Amino acid sequence: MRKKIKKINAAILIIGNEILSGRTQDKNVAFISNWLNLKCGISVKEVRIIPDNEKTIIENILILSKKFNYVFTTGGIGPTHDDITAKSISKAFKVKYDYHKEAYIILEKYYSKAKFNDGRKKMAKMPKGAKLIYNPSSAAPGFMIRNVLSLPGVPSILNSMIENCKKYLIKGLKIHSKTINIFTVESNISKQLSLIQKKYRKFVDIGSYPFFRLGKIGVSIVSRSTSIIKLKQVNIELMKLVKLKKIKVLKI
Amino acid sequence: MRKKIKKINAAILIIGNEILSGRTQDKNVAFISNWLNLKCGISVKEVRIIPDNEKTIIENILILSKKFNYVFTTGGIGPTHDDITAKSISKAFKVKYDYHKEAYIILEKYYSKAKFNDGRKKMAKMPKGAKLIYNPSSAAPGFMIRNVLSLPGVPSILNSMIENCKKYLIKGLKIHSKTINIFTVESNISKQLSLIQKKYRKFVDIGSYPFFRLGKIGVSIVSRSTSIIKLKQVNIELMKLVKLKKIKVLKI
Repeated sequence: MRKKIKKINAAILIIGNEILSGRTQDKNVAFISNWLNLKCGISVKEVRIIPDNEKTIIENILILSKKFNYVFTTGGIGPTHDDITAKSISKAFKVKYDYHKEAYIILEKYYSKAKFNDGRKKMAKMPKGAKLIYNPSSAAPGFMIRNVLSLPGVPSILNSMIENCKKYLIKGLKIHSKTINIFTVESNISKQLSLIQKKYRKFVDIGSYPFFRLGKIGVSIVSRSTSIIKLKQVNIELMKLVKLKKIKVLKI
Repeated sequence: MRKKIKKINAAILIIGNEILSGRTQDKNVAFISNWLNLKCGISVKEVRIIPDNEKTIIENILILSKKFNYVFTTGGIGPTHDDITAKSISKAFKVKYDYHKEAYIILEKYYSKAKFNDGRKKMAKMPKGAKLIYNPSSAAPGFMIRNVLSLPGVPSILNSMIENCKKYLIKGLKIHSKTINIFTVESNISKQLSLIQKKYRKFVDIGSYPFFRLGKIGVSIVSRSTSIIKLKQVNIELMKLVKLKKIKVLKI
């Protein structure tokens, strides 16, 4: 049953020492968040990055799964000793951590019986009752249990799987956005911007982000709303402000 | 007073709708975490990304500042309406949010009296009692109050300020790391790797991360420890395993 309801939110839980230590630059937050926004009308409201530690994973899964409609985890579902996401989520939800029959068959077929060693078998172990998220690039599936969806950490593999999450998600209202890039400094428009934000505070979120382009300093004004009409109204007010202040607009 | 004590940890709190929505790719986590590790021997143990929302900022500041030795915040200290970090931290710690005399003087001098408008003045407002983190690239200082250090969100500006945080931090023991890149798949070595990790679990953290390079699949084995001796011992065991399995090592 997929109903369009108003506001659906999600959290992302990045599990991995390599992201925390700064060794690896995370790319999954921006990817998942954009995908959820554009394809599902779901807003990411919190992200946490935590170490490969069972107690920490359990704690965060319990908090985030209560607080948000969905929780996406990335990382820790591979074959090595530091891949403890599936086991930890099983413990968090107090369900058995065991072979998922279909996942086992998929992996055995992919690797061939002879090469289906213990490490590879481990990737078929999941919380009991989990539903599979198919993996077109390297076979090992992700899974969904309750409102938690677990995906791998390698961005290219995660990206190839994301569409397979869709069938499990209730969609929200799409959030539209409009960006105006202008050549000025934030403090030149902050007062008026604040007044426009106040006027539309119930409908539109306005953000202001400095940029450096073509050797010049500028500001991107990003407006976001579920209402296209309100977005257009804000845009008209912003363009009035830009004209009044004689600010150059960057056309992209 | 700067003493070398054993384990000092930190959390990073990224404040900004633009990161949560996926519009902007965060680069500050990896930068701060690497800098803390290498220059201060401080390990980042948790990262949170949250929206520009006062209640959420207050809640997270209170939780993280209790749980970790230091909290680094990024974002929300500029001149616009969505820059509410300084005000929210003041509320979290129940101190006055007011002009910092030195910050006011710095900014007034930078912009000149005539151009020192309300938006710019706002950047001199901070929690009462805050110490300044000087900003060599765009004047507006960051600040430290209690164990919370607040930096701007723009990576180039943050990067230019980070050394000015050093004097406020107690250093921990440096964490050393050693990486071996090998051309194999994780499941080929997962069993033996797990045994090595068990043997050295008190001293060394071993992580295993797949990579794709030169058209081949490989694994980076990353060992991290405060003890160089233990790290060398682990490395010897890893090289034995590599030889035994006849795995090619990638020399970089």
